[in-house]
Amino acid sequence: MKFLDGSWKKDICQWEELLKEETLGKTVTIEGALHSIRKMGEVAFLILRKREGLFQTVYEQGAADLPLASCKEGMFLRVTGSLKKETRAPHERELHLAHIEILSKPAEPMPLAIDKWKLDTSLEAKLNMRPIALRNVQERAKFKIQEALVRAFRDYLYQEGFTEIHTPKIGARGAEGGANLFKLSYFHKPAVLAQSPQFYKQMMVGVFDRVFETGPVFRAEKHNTKRHLNEYTSLDFEMGYIDSFEEIMAMETGFLQYARALLKKDYEKELSILKITLPKVEEIPVVRFDEAKELASEKYQRKIRNPYDLEPEEEALIGKYFKEEYDADFVFVTHYPSKKRPFYAMDDPADPRFTLSFDLLFHGLEVTTGGQRIHDYQMLLDKIKDRGMETEGMEQYLDTFKHGMPPHGGLGIGLERLTMQLLGEENVREACLFPRDMNRLEP
Amino acid sequence: MKFLDGSWKKDICQWEELLKEETLGKTVTIEGALHSIRKMGEVAFLILRKREGLFQTVYEQGAADLPLASCKEGMFLRVTGSLKKETRAPHERELHLAHIEILSKPAEPMPLAIDKWKLDTSLEAKLNMRPIALRNVQERAKFKIQEALVRAFRDYLYQEGFTEIHTPKIGARGAEGGANLFKLSYFHKPAVLAQSPQFYKQMMVGVFDRVFETGPVFRAEKHNTKRHLNEYTSLDFEMGYIDSFEEIMAMETGFLQYARALLKKDYEKELSILKITLPKVEEIPVVRFDEAKELASEKYQRKIRNPYDLEPEEEALIGKYFKEEYDADFVFVTHYPSKKRPFYAMDDPADPRFTLSFDLLFHGLEVTTGGQRIHDYQMLLDKIKDRGMETEGMEQYLDTFKHGMPPHGGLGIGLERLTMQLLGEENVREACLFPRDMNRLEP
Repeated sequence: MKFLDGSWKKDICQWEELLKEETLGKTVTIEGALHSIRKMGEVAFLILRKREGLFQTVYEQGAADLPLASCKEGMFLRVTGSLKKETRAPHERELHLAHIEILSKPAEPMPLAIDKWKLDTSLEAKLNMRPIALRNVQERAKFKIQEALVRAFRDYLYQEGFTEIHTPKIGARGAEGGANLFKLSYFHKPAVLAQSPQFYKQMMVGVFDRVFETGPVFRAEKHNTKRHLNEYTSLDFEMGYIDSFEEIMAMETGFLQYARALLKKDYEKELSILKITLPKVEEIPVVRFDEAKELASEKYQRKIRNPYDLEPEEEALIGKYFKEEYDADFVFVTHYPSKKRPFYAMDDPADPRFTLSFDLLFHGLEVTTGGQRIHDYQMLLDKIKDRGMETEGMEQYLDTFKHGMPPHGGLGIGLERLTMQLLGEENVREACLFPRDMNRLEP
Repeated sequence: MKFLDGSWKKDICQWEELLKEETLGKTVTIEGALHSIRKMGEVAFLILRKREGLFQTVYEQGAADLPLASCKEGMFLRVTGSLKKETRAPHERELHLAHIEILSKPAEPMPLAIDKWKLDTSLEAKLNMRPIALRNVQERAKFKIQEALVRAFRDYLYQEGFTEIHTPKIGARGAEGGANLFKLSYFHKPAVLAQSPQFYKQMMVGVFDRVFETGPVFRAEKHNTKRHLNEYTSLDFEMGYIDSFEEIMAMETGFLQYARALLKKDYEKELSILKITLPKVEEIPVVRFDEAKELASEKYQRKIRNPYDLEPEEEALIGKYFKEEYDADFVFVTHYPSKKRPFYAMDDPADPRFTLSFDLLFHGLEVTTGGQRIHDYQMLLDKIKDRGMETEGMEQYLDTFKHGMPPHGGLGIGLERLTMQLLGEENVREACLFPRDMNRLEP
C-alpha cells in the first residue's frame, strides 16, 4: 500500500533560495510564465513571471537546447541554467539558460500587452479580459493588498477573542426589509440572497460574545456608480458587553493599525509596486454627523440642503476638511439620524432623532457603517411598531432577544471600497477580481 | 476634536487574568450570561457563561446588593466580588458576589434547558431554536472546532505561497453544467448561484500560481440525506506547476497535519468538552478506485454492482477496511472513472477511462474531491466536443486557456462534512450553524 506523508520533494529552486547569496554560481531549475522576450542582438532576455515577481533569464545562442524561435510569450516553462551575478539585472542576478522545458503552450498570442509596467487599456477592456489582464504585475499586486486587509481583519479579531462564523446567504427574508434584495426560488419557496449577515451575527453574540464573518453580500441596488457593486465582500463583526458604541470604533481603529503593520511587514513588495503611501491610523478623529456637515459647509461654502442626509459630495468635503485641518486620512462620523438607520439601531437617549452609530470615511468615502444595536426585546418591538413595520419573517431574530441578549454593536466594512481607497483608485471595480454591477455578470 | 487611538480601557477582569494565581483574593469585576442558578440552602451558585467557558459565582444572603429573586437565568450581568480559592469549583476558584449589575433581562424563560451538559432535544428542535440551542456549552464548542479547521486551511496555504481570492457567487452560468443550479433574475438577466469557484480559481492559477478561497457554494440538489446541504462552505484551492495529481493530495495531507497541530495547540478546551480523539494524519493510504472497490467487496462480501460508481455504502466499507487493516482514519481513493468526473478533469494517459483525480474519505465519508485539470486549450475543446457539450457561456474560461495555463490541479473540501466527521456526528446539520436543506430556509 502506498502512503502520503504530506511532504513532496521537487528539485525546483524557489524564490527565496533563488535570491540567496550562496545560490549564485549554482545550476538551478526554476519555473515560470514566459512574461516577455526581449531580443538584444546575440542574446535574448526571457523574463519569467512567478507569483513572487519577475525573474530575468538569458538566452545565448548555442547555450540553450531549444531554438529561440520555439519560445513564445504566454508559455509556461521549467528551465535549468547557471545563476550568475549581474548588477544591472533586477535582484542583481540572472539565469543563463541551458535547458528549456515547455510545460504548456498558448494557442494564441496575448490580447493585451501585459508585460508593460502599466497596463495601457480601459477599465472596461481590463474587466472583459480579467484573467489575462491580471497577469500584469501591477494589476495583480492590488489583490495581494486586498488579501492583506482580509487577513489582518481575521487575525486581529481572533486575537481579540472573536469567533469566526459562516452564516447562510440564502434566506427567507432580508435583514433590512424587502428593498434591494435579489429574489430566487428555493425548491419552489420564495427566498432572497442575504444583503448582510446582520441578523445572524447579532444572534451569535448571545452565543460567542464576539463574532466575525468575511463573506459575500448581495445588493440589488439600481446604482451604477464608481463606488457601488451589487455583490461585494463584507468584513463584519459584532461584539457584546459594550458600554458605548465608541468601543466598536476603537476596535476598528485597532484593526486598521494591525492591517498597516501587516502590510509593512509582509506586503512591502506590493506596496512598492503600487507606490502606496500607507494612511495614518495612530489616531482617528471623531466628529458628530451634524457638526461634520457644518464644518464642511462653512469651510467650503456649500449650503446644507438636507440636515438629515449626507451626500457623497459632502462626505468628500468632510474627508478634505479633516485632511487639511488634522492631516487625517480617516474620520469617524457619528450620530447618524435615526430615520437614516435601520430599525435595530440604538437611538441616542440624549436625542432620539439621532442614533449611537457611525460611518468611517477614508479619504472622503464611506468604507464602514456600524453602531450599537437595540438589545432589549420590548424596545425592539416598539421600534418596529413605531416604524409601521411587520415582524413577519423576523420571528427567529426577535425570539433570540426574547430570551436575553447582551448590550452589543458591530460594523460592516466594504472590502473593495477599503482596498480602492488604499490603492487610490477612482473606481471600486479596480479593487474587485470579478465585479458584478447592473451591466456585468461575466466573466 | 476628539480622537480614538485604538485602545479602550475597561476595568473588567478577563478570563486569562481571572485564572491567574495572583488574582486570587482580589476584588474583580466580570461579565457573563447567567447560565444557571443553583440554590443550596443559605447560598446560591450563579454560573456565568462567558465565551471562554463557565465560571462559578457565589451568592450569599446579605453579601450582595440585589435580592436573589431579581436574578433570572438568561440575564446578562456585570458582577463585582472577591475571588476566592475553592478546590471543589471548576478552575478551583469562585467569585463571592458583592455587587450585581443587570445589563439586560430576558422577556421570557429559556425554551430549552441549555445549562444541561448534553442538550436533551431532537435535532429538529435544536435547529428550529438554533440561536438559543447554541448557548449550550457543548453545542457551541462544535463551532470553535469548525473555526480551527478554516483557520488552519488558510494559515497553512498562506505559508505555502497561496493567494486568497474572492470570486463572485452570482454568475451567468455554472462551472459544471446546468443541473443543480439555483436560478435567479439579475436585473432582468438570467443568472445562477455558483455551485463551486472552480472556473475562477483555475483562471486565477494563471495569475497567482496558487490560490485558495473559503466561501459559500450553492447546490440545488434534490437530496435530503444526512450528508447533504444545499448551501455549504467550501474550502477550495488550486495550484499550478504540478507534475502529478499526487502533489495536490500531499498538500491536503500537509493541511490536515497543520489543522491537527492547531487544534491541539489552541482548541484543547473544546476537544476536551466534546471528547474528540484527533484522527491520524501522519500518513494517509492511497488506493485506486477500482482496487478499493475490490478490497471492500472481497472482505465484506458485498457484490460490486457498478464498476464505475462508488455508492455511499461502499465508501463506508472502504473506510472500515482501511481502519481495520491499516488503522487509518483517512484514505485517498484515486483514479475515478472519467464519466463520473466533470469535463475539465484530466484523463489518465495510461487509461483514459479513468482520471487523475481523487476523493478523500474520512471515516468512510467523502470530504474532498480533487484532481488534475486539463490545461491545454485544444484538449479542453476536444473533451467538450466529445461529451456533446456546448461552449456557450464558457468563452471567458476557455479564452484563459487559449492564452496559456500551467499544468494545475486542486480540490474542494466540504467544511461541514469535515467538521461532522471530526466531531463524530451522524448528521451534517450538526456541523452547520444555520443549515439549508430542501425543507429548511430558517432561521
